[in-house]
Amino acid sequence: MRSQSQSPTRVLGIDPGLTRMGMGVVEGSIGRPLSLVDVNVIRTTSALPVWERLVTIERGVEAWIDEHRPDAVAIERMFARSDVSTIMGTAQAAGVAMVVAARRGIPVAMHTPSEVKAAVSGNGRADKAQVGLMVTRILRLDAMPKPADAADALALAITHIWRGGAQNRLEAAVAAQALKAGTR
Amino acid sequence: MRSQSQSPTRVLGIDPGLTRMGMGVVEGSIGRPLSLVDVNVIRTTSALPVWERLVTIERGVEAWIDEHRPDAVAIERMFARSDVSTIMGTAQAAGVAMVVAARRGIPVAMHTPSEVKAAVSGNGRADKAQVGLMVTRILRLDAMPKPADAADALALAITHIWRGGAQNRLEAAVAAQALKAGTR
Repeated sequence: MRSQSQSPTRVLGIDPGLTRMGMGVVEGSIGRPLSLVDVNVIRTTSALPVWERLVTIERGVEAWIDEHRPDAVAIERMFARSDVSTIMGTAQAAGVAMVVAARRGIPVAMHTPSEVKAAVSGNGRADKAQVGLMVTRILRLDAMPKPADAADALALAITHIWRGGAQNRLEAAVAAQALKAGTR
Repeated sequence: MRSQSQSPTRVLGIDPGLTRMGMGVVEGSIGRPLSLVDVNVIRTTSALPVWERLVTIERGVEAWIDEHRPDAVAIERMFARSDVSTIMGTAQAAGVAMVVAARRGIPVAMHTPSEVKAAVSGNGRADKAQVGLMVTRILRLDAMPKPADAADALALAITHIWRGGAQNRLEAAVAAQALKAGTR
């Protein structure tokens, strides 16, 4: 943890979605105040075919990464939801964001909604309003970021910095071991 | 339909998947014998993180499109399945394939499994073996393409040529109309 508390990390948090995709950049290190770099929401219309919406999302994420040059990208890990078509659109938007980061060699990490809620509010079952309020306090903002997708993206970035990327290093080690063992 | 039966179309069919992604290129026109151009399966290992697998898929689709220069890309339209994690991986792989095609300006179309089964076998509830057999006959192949993902990708390409892209033109017209009406 020592080296991480010395050099600040810049993290792009992404709350994936086809209609609204929240992107929030936070900079800082464990044990020091974090700061908001920028926050945005990419919107695409359901009047267009999915592939054109995904191209808009790809360009938006690319432009954002080029502008802010994050050290890592943290994306929400999805689980079962009620509506399958929503899951698919969200998964596609997340997949496109992952590819944009991975092909530039930027480390990608995923955090579940409950990990994010627990990290920012101490309660894995916190509601949207509580998460938004804590993001506002942690980043010392004048107003709560809106829409909720923007606040959620910032919460993901905060979570990633505070978790210190430990989970990610573990996953990388497991993958490397599996490759060595000839699983591939 | 007249102009389409005169100039042959080359279609890349894609059966999306994170572990195995079938890609089949078929050339021909309505009312004439179709021919197999090439068929392949991109495989990625679950030992790697999703984003690295998606980058492999992106590169595979790009290389395939560069080599075969299809006039259109036909992708399987997914519906609810039992396992949510499978849906997400499949949706992500499909999303990446869509983006690769759409950003090069290649028309994308989606066909449901039952549309594909009905088109190649006359029965929307045909099983994998029947689809494989019909693909083998339609393309006059010596053996059934394997694995099933390869045969399914070819079936998608055949379906797209036989349906004449009518559905796609309809969707494009609806999208254009919606944009004009200022929905975006």
